[in-house]
Amino acid sequence: MTSQTAETAEISAPAEGADGTKPALSFLGLGALGTAFARAWLAAGYPLTVWNRTAARAEPLAAEGARVARTAAEAVAAADLVVVCLLDDASVGDVLADADLAGKDLVNLTTGTPAQGRARAEWAAARGARFLDGGVMAVPPMVGDPDSGGYVFYSGSRDLFEAHARTLAVPAGTKYVGTDAGHAALHDVALLSAMNGMFAGVAHAFALVRKEDIAPREFAGLLAGWLNAMAPFVHRVAEQLELGDYTEGVVSNLAMQVAGNATLLRTAEEQGVSSELLAPYMELMERRLADGHGDEDGTGVIDLLAR
Amino acid sequence: MTSQTAETAEISAPAEGADGTKPALSFLGLGALGTAFARAWLAAGYPLTVWNRTAARAEPLAAEGARVARTAAEAVAAADLVVVCLLDDASVGDVLADADLAGKDLVNLTTGTPAQGRARAEWAAARGARFLDGGVMAVPPMVGDPDSGGYVFYSGSRDLFEAHARTLAVPAGTKYVGTDAGHAALHDVALLSAMNGMFAGVAHAFALVRKEDIAPREFAGLLAGWLNAMAPFVHRVAEQLELGDYTEGVVSNLAMQVAGNATLLRTAEEQGVSSELLAPYMELMERRLADGHGDEDGTGVIDLLAR
Repeated sequence: MTSQTAETAEISAPAEGADGTKPALSFLGLGALGTAFARAWLAAGYPLTVWNRTAARAEPLAAEGARVARTAAEAVAAADLVVVCLLDDASVGDVLADADLAGKDLVNLTTGTPAQGRARAEWAAARGARFLDGGVMAVPPMVGDPDSGGYVFYSGSRDLFEAHARTLAVPAGTKYVGTDAGHAALHDVALLSAMNGMFAGVAHAFALVRKEDIAPREFAGLLAGWLNAMAPFVHRVAEQLELGDYTEGVVSNLAMQVAGNATLLRTAEEQGVSSELLAPYMELMERRLADGHGDEDGTGVIDLLAR
Repeated sequence: MTSQTAETAEISAPAEGADGTKPALSFLGLGALGTAFARAWLAAGYPLTVWNRTAARAEPLAAEGARVARTAAEAVAAADLVVVCLLDDASVGDVLADADLAGKDLVNLTTGTPAQGRARAEWAAARGARFLDGGVMAVPPMVGDPDSGGYVFYSGSRDLFEAHARTLAVPAGTKYVGTDAGHAALHDVALLSAMNGMFAGVAHAFALVRKEDIAPREFAGLLAGWLNAMAPFVHRVAEQLELGDYTEGVVSNLAMQVAGNATLLRTAEEQGVSSELLAPYMELMERRLADGHGDEDGTGVIDLLAR
């Protein structure tokens, strides 16, 4: 397994929690998501210190047994493992400006871009901390529920991840995606972007049927089944990208797909639905076809997205 | 169960095949998909007459036992159940112009729009035929493979569907979606449109990671898992549409989603990837937010698509 694999790293040495001990944690940033993470550790019996700029947000957790720090620096001083979940990357620098991070393990669950994750890793290293960036693939109700399927992408210090693997796994599943501190955010954003595309398509689909005598709930069952059946085709896209051959395993080639798009557009017109959500992808397919790639799959569209 | 439900209709009367008999079929249109359907019936022991404008395409099926008609009219005359899978809707009218359809059961697997399906149903009725339109949710390799998950949406004559339900189920699964002959095509197009959206998102996601040291195959596993986990949220969209209340069950509201989109766009910029596939959906989300719906889910975007 290389450092870039997406699987959770094996834990090779005796780590915290192996003997049932639960290390102290400090948690900074008690928005809805941060509160859910903090609560999960508290409920699991971890000694927890919390801090939030608006102190009132810490009160429910205090009632459940958390210690409330008066300042961010005090919270950082209270534990070796410090987890932050703030408004944005700039807030991380601001909130921790006066804290002594030397020797600390800093885990950043704040939403950010890959470049922000990398820059924050350098910033933490300059302050003597090990750093792990997290990309949270869960909404608050999923955190702390082991059956929810929610998880966190982590990247950055492998040593930090391995040392705290059991602790990190308490609120949600973990997927370590490499030493590049930008890769957790990159995986997070890539998956959310793909989801946005899926829900754009879903919006168009519901718009097509909504004026008809078709029950939305029944249609939803068909739609979910179809999307679940088609999602595995991303493996073929990956295979084609790795081979550099976009004709590998093609069943319906680009020429056929573009021909089929005409029916999709005409149906949208008939149903009185704007095709603005479908148009950009279709235009790229047409451009790729015009470039002489009609025998390929749609994978070549990816080449056209590079700026 | 109403006529508009998506479930396959129950078969209420003794139907063909119940006693093991296999009725004669005529099949017109031997492209890749048509050939796959025809071959599935032939392999299952149905007496089959085939016709194709380019006669050479019928030769492999003839070698497997199909009778080859010299004209479309002769093919139609050879069986009570006539299945066509032609280039487009206009071809159906052209090919069957000289055929006597009186008393026939005509099943149309030709790709078309809902309006074309409805008009073709009237055309068939005027010629004395019962009519069923089909929307094929399968590619040729899936046809005839009961484990492939491929199926056909059917709509139009319920009597025709029930009379031939066993026969129709031979090449692929069947889902009867109502008496409106346009609804098979509408379901077909709606699901394909949603899939296009999903693959647009997938293209963007692969474009984001491709210049990094991230193996496409490992990324594909994460991506497929995420899309499969998110697809069931279409049920919440349906519920919100039925209730007319887009705040029902909201976890991440539109205001939060739009804020998150900024990270998606900034990451695309960092990675040198065009955001043209993401932009239209984000713009509609922003428009809906600007209209004062920040507490809703993204479902309101569907309202904005109506022309």
